[in-house]
Amino acid sequence: MKINVNENFGKIKQNYLFSDIASKVKAFKEANPDASIIKMGIGDVTLPLPEPSVNAMIAAAKEMGVKETFRGYPPEYGYDFLREAISGHYKTLGTDVKASSIFVSDGAKSDLGNIVDILGDNEIIIPDPVYPVYVDSNTMSGRKITLVPGSRDNGFLPMPPEKKGNPAVIYICSPNNPTGAVYGFDGLKAWVDYALDTGSLIIFDAAYEAFITENVPHTIYQIKGADQCAIEVSSFSKFAGFTGTRCGWTVVPEGLESNGTKIAALWARRQATKFNGVSYPVQRAAEAALSPEGIKACMANIEYYRKNACMLAELLRSKDIFFTGGVNSPYIWLKCPNNMGGWEFFDMLLNKYGIVGTPGEGFGDAGSGYFRLTAFGSAEGTAEACQRLKDL
Amino acid sequence: MKINVNENFGKIKQNYLFSDIASKVKAFKEANPDASIIKMGIGDVTLPLPEPSVNAMIAAAKEMGVKETFRGYPPEYGYDFLREAISGHYKTLGTDVKASSIFVSDGAKSDLGNIVDILGDNEIIIPDPVYPVYVDSNTMSGRKITLVPGSRDNGFLPMPPEKKGNPAVIYICSPNNPTGAVYGFDGLKAWVDYALDTGSLIIFDAAYEAFITENVPHTIYQIKGADQCAIEVSSFSKFAGFTGTRCGWTVVPEGLESNGTKIAALWARRQATKFNGVSYPVQRAAEAALSPEGIKACMANIEYYRKNACMLAELLRSKDIFFTGGVNSPYIWLKCPNNMGGWEFFDMLLNKYGIVGTPGEGFGDAGSGYFRLTAFGSAEGTAEACQRLKDL
Repeated sequence: MKINVNENFGKIKQNYLFSDIASKVKAFKEANPDASIIKMGIGDVTLPLPEPSVNAMIAAAKEMGVKETFRGYPPEYGYDFLREAISGHYKTLGTDVKASSIFVSDGAKSDLGNIVDILGDNEIIIPDPVYPVYVDSNTMSGRKITLVPGSRDNGFLPMPPEKKGNPAVIYICSPNNPTGAVYGFDGLKAWVDYALDTGSLIIFDAAYEAFITENVPHTIYQIKGADQCAIEVSSFSKFAGFTGTRCGWTVVPEGLESNGTKIAALWARRQATKFNGVSYPVQRAAEAALSPEGIKACMANIEYYRKNACMLAELLRSKDIFFTGGVNSPYIWLKCPNNMGGWEFFDMLLNKYGIVGTPGEGFGDAGSGYFRLTAFGSAEGTAEACQRLKDL
Repeated sequence: MKINVNENFGKIKQNYLFSDIASKVKAFKEANPDASIIKMGIGDVTLPLPEPSVNAMIAAAKEMGVKETFRGYPPEYGYDFLREAISGHYKTLGTDVKASSIFVSDGAKSDLGNIVDILGDNEIIIPDPVYPVYVDSNTMSGRKITLVPGSRDNGFLPMPPEKKGNPAVIYICSPNNPTGAVYGFDGLKAWVDYALDTGSLIIFDAAYEAFITENVPHTIYQIKGADQCAIEVSSFSKFAGFTGTRCGWTVVPEGLESNGTKIAALWARRQATKFNGVSYPVQRAAEAALSPEGIKACMANIEYYRKNACMLAELLRSKDIFFTGGVNSPYIWLKCPNNMGGWEFFDMLLNKYGIVGTPGEGFGDAGSGYFRLTAFGSAEGTAEACQRLKDL
């Protein structure tokens, strides 16, 4: 063929991180067939779906098998029952997010990737290290990206530029993937104020919100003025173990407009044109996760992961190793000892201790020399890993 | 805010078709509270999910509730079990489509909308009238669209331009929504030859394939050379009643490349960046629809709709009214009698016969003076409508 393809795809860095890890683990296994390997690299949940969600999905599947209760095309923005349930979730956080501002989707990743459709050419501000979707989706659209580096000095919580810049699109992920760092009220307020001051849009990724235990913002709408400058994307993936079930949402407040154009109207049009809504049984399962019994079951799972994070944090504290996360987050982001590089530390951890983690290099240049461990494994595996690492 | 939004959104025609229809029906109901209205405007299935799909979804939901069988993130391109099942479907059509060329998604609409991401600036050729997503998604991307009008003369099956044009992206929907017209082998071959000759890409929408009974192509890959110039998008929505369950797929053949770039690699990267795969229970339900029992149950439903289409076609034939569709399709596309406009005919049908359909004006300029009836209603309702229309 001779058609023009999107040349920007050629500018995306090919990230072989997880395949490189897999081949190293494979080689280790072949050389050490009897070694027991503890996997702490995975960013995916491992505990089963909460029972109320399973039951709701089964009931909805049965409804779909009967003519009288069968449902065809779902509403593109989600069933009212689920939008209301999510709005109720925001009420428990002390914020008022209208059901009509909530757009249900098949997951946060889709929305974070697709949001570029409604935007024109703007400067894009993205913290480094970070979840790769922000950089990749903007690169695909040919946008100019400014990375704001996290570091030990700022606790991997970069602050806004001191000099007032142009209107920009600013991505914030808090609690952060991969660093586990969380903005406090003051830090997030600084970003909201900067956005209001410059006419910028914040895209706030709240996917790890359920892990928060300390007094830090759960949603950007806890910050005054955020409803004038921020979209929030969130998910049932980590809260309710929905990584394989697929449901998320995006909040686009009514008051959000740029030069007179309502942003919610653009997103509504985007979704109505290129999306056809979420599976009915999945939406019922998500609704059930937000019922009182559902929340209880979800929180028991989160607590299980939190205890793992706590074990890892204690170990690192006892070793005087700098880290972020471990609290308010399933991630532990540690400085590799003895100024090792991330891959060097990876090899040592695997070969000496049989533990698999993720080199920080995979999440951006500012991640060099750091390492991510996750709390999504089993309690027994995590305890065993801490035991093995005692002589680190 | 002062950020730049995508200005192309302002160029999309606001289509109030279905809300205009709804308000007219509402007004009629208020004026005639006792009238029984037969709805034949709906493009959505009404029969329940096939039992094998319901059972598979229930079994998968149960698996998700147990730690040992729980599944996290699905593969972005679909589970192998489903890709293999879809590949098997193509085998029954006498074509060889590799499982690795099949990308499972949450529905044809998403893929048809998102495919623009991987393309550069090209001329876009779209038949008129047609499903609005092709025009809207390309307008949003700022593309130049050339409409190829359908008409009574070409049986609403427009043929390629006689003069060889530039490499273009060509959309074809066959069986067509809204006209029900289907390309024969010669017609589709003419398009494939034109694409090969000009270096163009065809995006073939096969969503209504299951309705085909005559000897016409079910898939574009039945045409020689199509694997060098065509992407095919298809869906479980109409075949298995999945409009509310959400599952579809896109085929990007390995051999498809433009100026040396593999198109499958671009689509793979797009999906891996902006999509996270389809819900596991939904994929199991889709797999079950392609099992021998599933196909039997799906085909029984399709047969039910087909009989409705047949009744409507017979009525129009007896009245000597020109129409397309009615066979190989759930749609009947008729020329409004007495040179009425589509809305004029709509009003008459509603007020005199209590029947709701869709004015052709809603599907593009070439749809003016035409009208769409669908076979997705009940057998009783369709028979009653035919009875009422005897004096048309």
